[in-house]
Amino acid sequence: MKKRPLILVTNDDGITAPGIRALIDVMNEIGDVIVVAPDSPQSGMGHAITVNSTLYCSPITINHDDVQLEYSCSGTPADCVKLAVNEILNKKPDICVSGINHGSNSSINVIYSGTMSAAVEAGVEGIPAIGFSLCDYSWEANFDAVKKHVKTITESALKNGMPKGVVLNVNFPKLQEKDIKGIKVCRQANARWVEEFDKRTNPMGREYYWLTGKFVNQDKGEDTDEWALANGYVSLVPVQFDLTAHHAIQDLNTWSLND
Amino acid sequence: MKKRPLILVTNDDGITAPGIRALIDVMNEIGDVIVVAPDSPQSGMGHAITVNSTLYCSPITINHDDVQLEYSCSGTPADCVKLAVNEILNKKPDICVSGINHGSNSSINVIYSGTMSAAVEAGVEGIPAIGFSLCDYSWEANFDAVKKHVKTITESALKNGMPKGVVLNVNFPKLQEKDIKGIKVCRQANARWVEEFDKRTNPMGREYYWLTGKFVNQDKGEDTDEWALANGYVSLVPVQFDLTAHHAIQDLNTWSLND
Repeated sequence: MKKRPLILVTNDDGITAPGIRALIDVMNEIGDVIVVAPDSPQSGMGHAITVNSTLYCSPITINHDDVQLEYSCSGTPADCVKLAVNEILNKKPDICVSGINHGSNSSINVIYSGTMSAAVEAGVEGIPAIGFSLCDYSWEANFDAVKKHVKTITESALKNGMPKGVVLNVNFPKLQEKDIKGIKVCRQANARWVEEFDKRTNPMGREYYWLTGKFVNQDKGEDTDEWALANGYVSLVPVQFDLTAHHAIQDLNTWSLND
Repeated sequence: MKKRPLILVTNDDGITAPGIRALIDVMNEIGDVIVVAPDSPQSGMGHAITVNSTLYCSPITINHDDVQLEYSCSGTPADCVKLAVNEILNKKPDICVSGINHGSNSSINVIYSGTMSAAVEAGVEGIPAIGFSLCDYSWEANFDAVKKHVKTITESALKNGMPKGVVLNVNFPKLQEKDIKGIKVCRQANARWVEEFDKRTNPMGREYYWLTGKFVNQDKGEDTDEWALANGYVSLVPVQFDLTAHHAIQDLNTWSLND
């Protein structure tokens, strides 16, 4: 019998979020699960790491029926992966899965995403990794609808291995299970947020801001994650952490920088 | 006479750091400067944005001799760029420069870097942008040695325009001005941090960690930023924010995801 894979589960909404509970349910069907996740929500944390402050990490038990190793960590999603691999496990898991995020991490959201930063951190350490997100910000989002696809994608990654230097960014449309048409391999759409700051005055009379904004997709391509999600598909984007714009090197070599 | 460019200056070490003061000195020679920077150090913040908390932003005066517009912001480097463009300036600057960081942002450090997240945020908004970092973590680092190159690179970017979808990651070796050999256009080296957690016990008896580690360069290429820096050159890497690993799409399409 083949050995059950060791699966590291983390997220950015915090260890008690319904999204990570759904992800743990699926992973328990696939392998041996260890959970190391933030003790509080870390949305919008990007690839933050804790360098100027201390980190706490404590074992906790959440499901009494189904006891498993869970650690609650005071740091960011990237910290959780570093701690899991280097202190808690002292070895690399076979795969790291992050999420399921309450809300989209498609398109440009990947750069702000704590969910994806955990996957990228694992990828940098040479661990196959997948970030899962559901395009529904509600705490009561229906994660049951996507469990089948989470399982398919994770098992495929374990079976096929991950392309070198790549992690997967998977987003699910907010649909009933029967209405999801399938999984599409996509590129990141060229979209961005147009910020709108909500300016207010605090009780002491000092002005402050809330960051708000609207998402604008400038990309008409039918091979993008935004297109897939808008058309009822699960989007799967291979994400790299070599950020070099190789195509621009030739152009930049024409600049007279050393004259 | 040609109009002086409008230059947005930010950083991640905080508005009072010597590195941003050196950058402002150089930019005052080139154009009209506005500074919007964090009120406290934000190292390791990656591309964090402030979504679950309020943002404060206040005009301040630091140089009484050379009064200019400076704003101190309670948020992250990416927040500073968003606030500058959408609330303070209400228009796009001609260029955004970030730094000069006290410490390296070469190679994989780019993904953890607040300095570079500000540049990337500007890039996403369609603004030419450059992050500058000096490979010296000291608060008393010698920024005078690199001012000439900061000026050359910024003026070249203004003159040539930035390749589409690209921002620049510039790192300076810790050398005297006369010992810097020139500027090299490079790719990001394939390097990573091997974490070492320093485990301690607090006065209340609870265990906690400090994140430490050592940087390991696995890349023998002579076209990398690490090679350039180790050999006395300024490294200049074009960085993209389309994170799609386009080369992996074909491979992933062979996975049986919809069977």
